[in-house]
This record gives sequence, structure tokens and C-alpha cells, in this order.
Amino acid sequence: MAKPKWKKVVIVGVGLIGGSFAKAIRKKGLTEEIVGIGRTIENLKIAQHRGLIDRYTRDLKEGVQGADLVFVSVPVLTIPSLVERIESVLSPEAVITDAGSVKGPIVGRLSSRLRHPERFVGGHPIAGTEQSGAGAAFASLFKGKLCFLTPTPRTDRVVLEKIRRTWLAIGAKVQTIDPQEHDRIFACVSHLPHLVAYALVGTVLETDRSMLRYSGGGFRDFTRIAESPAEMWRDISLMNQKALLKALDRYEKVIGELSEMIQSGDSRRLLHFFQKAQKTKKGMKSL
Amino acid sequence: MAKPKWKKVVIVGVGLIGGSFAKAIRKKGLTEEIVGIGRTIENLKIAQHRGLIDRYTRDLKEGVQGADLVFVSVPVLTIPSLVERIESVLSPEAVITDAGSVKGPIVGRLSSRLRHPERFVGGHPIAGTEQSGAGAAFASLFKGKLCFLTPTPRTDRVVLEKIRRTWLAIGAKVQTIDPQEHDRIFACVSHLPHLVAYALVGTVLETDRSMLRYSGGGFRDFTRIAESPAEMWRDISLMNQKALLKALDRYEKVIGELSEMIQSGDSRRLLHFFQKAQKTKKGMKSL
Repeated sequence: MAKPKWKKVVIVGVGLIGGSFAKAIRKKGLTEEIVGIGRTIENLKIAQHRGLIDRYTRDLKEGVQGADLVFVSVPVLTIPSLVERIESVLSPEAVITDAGSVKGPIVGRLSSRLRHPERFVGGHPIAGTEQSGAGAAFASLFKGKLCFLTPTPRTDRVVLEKIRRTWLAIGAKVQTIDPQEHDRIFACVSHLPHLVAYALVGTVLETDRSMLRYSGGGFRDFTRIAESPAEMWRDISLMNQKALLKALDRYEKVIGELSEMIQSGDSRRLLHFFQKAQKTKKGMKSL
Repeated sequence: MAKPKWKKVVIVGVGLIGGSFAKAIRKKGLTEEIVGIGRTIENLKIAQHRGLIDRYTRDLKEGVQGADLVFVSVPVLTIPSLVERIESVLSPEAVITDAGSVKGPIVGRLSSRLRHPERFVGGHPIAGTEQSGAGAAFASLFKGKLCFLTPTPRTDRVVLEKIRRTWLAIGAKVQTIDPQEHDRIFACVSHLPHLVAYALVGTVLETDRSMLRYSGGGFRDFTRIAESPAEMWRDISLMNQKALLKALDRYEKVIGELSEMIQSGDSRRLLHFFQKAQKTKKGMKSL
């Protein structure tokens, strides 16, 4: 399989994801030049110093000039309007892709609002660490990890294939998926778990802060999950609102049933409830 | 501080906790003899083979004869009646202690039902791994870990002190606490987190099993928590019913508020909600 080749790649948002993507495509020789665009000069300097990008600018128009690929990895709520702004100053042959962890609303809005929706490919690499920023980026972040691509019927198949081969070239496994289906799955296996962790930590804080002293084993895992950026989870909650409310609703019912079993002392149903969950490992694969 | 000395220690339930306690007190030379009592011959054989116990029996009366310490580490629901049975065949100078992770109902019932409540000391070492059984026991399990003791006004202070020094001698940190206060704390920082993890896994299973394929990062931690023994969590749920229902009630309110914030798209409140949880690490200490 021939390596996909880009002339000038622009990374908008050179954080852990954007910076690691930059580092990985450079390492694999997939591009001649990488330009970083971001809000914080300090982070852009780190990115340049670490060799993730060749140069940076805060001027979107200047930055994307002559680019054939723009990779957008900024907070999800910002993605749609930013991609529209990027397209308005970009050459029509260039490709835009993103790394937002919610896809339905982004892809939906862009496929109706872009002048060239065929050249936008929604993406979501399932990778991350607890760290963030350009300082945390590393070339092998996506190695062996799954990257979802969410083409629509309007997406140019040649463009899609080139984006797919770019992810494959840096070690990711690629799966195309319907954007709504993606959001439904991630509401359940990622967004709901994070909300649940935040809610649990919130409950303990409300009840009696001093109990945190005794938080061994189980609870510690939750506080770790609840340490990821608050802004990011606010944005994901707002953007994946529909799927998330459905998932929360089902979860609330399960919690209600559990309460009721404990209240009524229903030993048999409780045992069954706890046993069911233990059979899950079988169905699990590494991402 | 002089080492506490026991003549004959009987371990009722030679699992991870009971077996590790046996191994640790032998290693520190705190006893002349250790006898194991249990339901499963196979597990008792492993315990003997691994040198956790000198010998074993399934006959309670024979086993506890001549013992000066009986250590009970069996499922919580079984503890009260078993301790009563043990006392009925034990010499009145002997001491009984337990390792149950719920304390109020055990201590409450035993202080009114035992002939010698002054010689029973409720205990709860906060230690464990995902493993169980005598095969998983090791001498340093309690090293640096907290062990709660829940004396009542009736508890003999000399007996309490000897139990305390036994835990200290095997490396644990000891804290005395009111049994109800213990249960209130553990409902929040241990039992509720486990129920929440089970409920989350249950929700995903109900929604669509095939989504488990995509369970990276966050969700994986929950399935790990939800892997601990179903029987144990059924028993804990039933026994710590009162404190747990209160904790669940507060948790349901928090989840309800969160749903409402997402429903109404209240960006400011959502951010505040997520930010609060991130300040928790400060209050946390290792157990």
C-alpha cells in the first residue's frame, strides 16, 4: 500500500491529539511541512521546540494558505464554526478532518453548511492519556488504537481513502461508522461512565468531604476518571446531549431498581444483578 | 512495645484476608499454633500446604478448643450467627474478632446476644486484591493499610489493646471508630462506588452488549471494579442497607440534577459541576 503524501499539513489545536498526530505523520514521512495554529503562544512554542511542527501562527488565514490537509483538534463545541471559517479561507482541493469525540452534530451541521462537504471527513481517534498539551504529545499515541471515521453519502471516496490510509500509516486501526451510531455508543461506553464518576465524587463531597481520607481502592478509580478536563466534559455533555440523556435515563432506571432491591431485601434479585455484570469481560476487546 | 502473644489462633474462613492474617502473625512470631476452619476442604489444604495454618478442621467445636484468639473472616451476613456459635463452644477467656466490611449490624447484634460481649472486637482491615482464597494470601497484605476497630462501651480495654497491637505488629495502621460511623463512611467511599460500577455495566449490557467491543479507558475501570464477588456485594448491600439507601438516595439526586443541567443546556452549572470534582485529590490520602 502506497504511503499517503501531503504537502502541507496544518494542525489546528496542537494539544495531545493534534501534537501526536503531527509527530506521527512527520516520523512516517507523510508530509513535507507542518504548521501549527492555536490560541496559546506558549503551547505553540513547546510544539515547535519539540519538533511537532515546523512553525506556528495564530492567524488562521495565513496558516492554512497552501495547505492540502487541515487537522482540527479543538474542543468539540468549537469544531463546526471553526471548520466553516477554515473552509472559507482554504483552497477548494484541500481536505479537512477533525478529532472530536462527538460526531453527529459536527458532521450533520458541516455537511449542510460547507461549500465542499465532500472534502470534510469526521474522525475520532480513541486515544488519550491523563496528560494534555503539546508537551504530552508522542508519535506512538495512536499505535494499535482505533480511529473512527464518519463519512456521509456526500463524502468524496478518494478523500476518505487518503485519510484512512494516513491513520493506518501511523499505526491506528480504522473503522468507518455512522455518526449517530458513533454518538450512541460513546454516550454509553465513554461519556456516561465519566458523568457517573463525576456524580459519585460529587455525592461524597456533598455528604462529607472528610470521608475522602478513607477513599481506598474502588473510589480512587473514580476520582482518577473524574480528573479529566472539566471544560471538555461540559462540551461533550452539551454536544452529545441527545444520546447522553437517553443513556442517563436508562442508567437512572437501573439505579432505581437497585435501590428497590436493597430496600426490599431481595437477596435473589440482588445476586442476579451482581452476577450479570461479571460476565462482561468476555465481550470486551482492547481498543 | 511488647509483641502481643497468642497461644492458639483459629482462623475461621481462610481466604485472602484470613490467610494473610495467619501468614503475617506467624511470620512475626505472634502465635504458637494456627488452626484453620472452613467450608471447602480444597481451600484448607492449599492453606496448610502454603504454611498459612498448621492444621485444619471442619468441626467448629474441635477447632476452637483451647484457642485464645478466633479470627472470623467469612461473608458478612454469616458473621453474627457464626460468632454466637463459636462463643458457645469457646473458653470464656478467649477473644473473638472479625474482618467484616460492615460493622453496625454485626457489632449491634453481638453486643446484645453474646454472653461475653466484652471479649469481642469488631474489625475491618481495608485491604484486598482482585484475587481471593488461600492461594492468594500473603504476609504483607496489611502492611501500611488501615484497620478499623469498632469497640463498644462494653468492650474490655485490655482485649481491645491486644487486638490493636496484633494489627500494629503485622504492619497495619489502626483506627478505632464507632460502628455506625464506619458504615456511613463505607457506604459512601466503597459500597456506593461498587454499586455504581455494577449499575453502569448493567446499563450497557441492557442497551447493547455489542458496544462492549468499544469499551476503552473509562469504562474498563468500571468493569474491573464490577468483577469482585457477586455474593459478597449482595451480602454487603443487604447488611449495610440503611446507610447504603441514604447514600444511593443522595447519589440519585446528583444524577438527576446532572440530567437536568444537560437537558436545559446549562453550560455554566455543568462546568461548575465538573470542576468541583477535580479539587478532590487534595483531600485524599492513601489507606
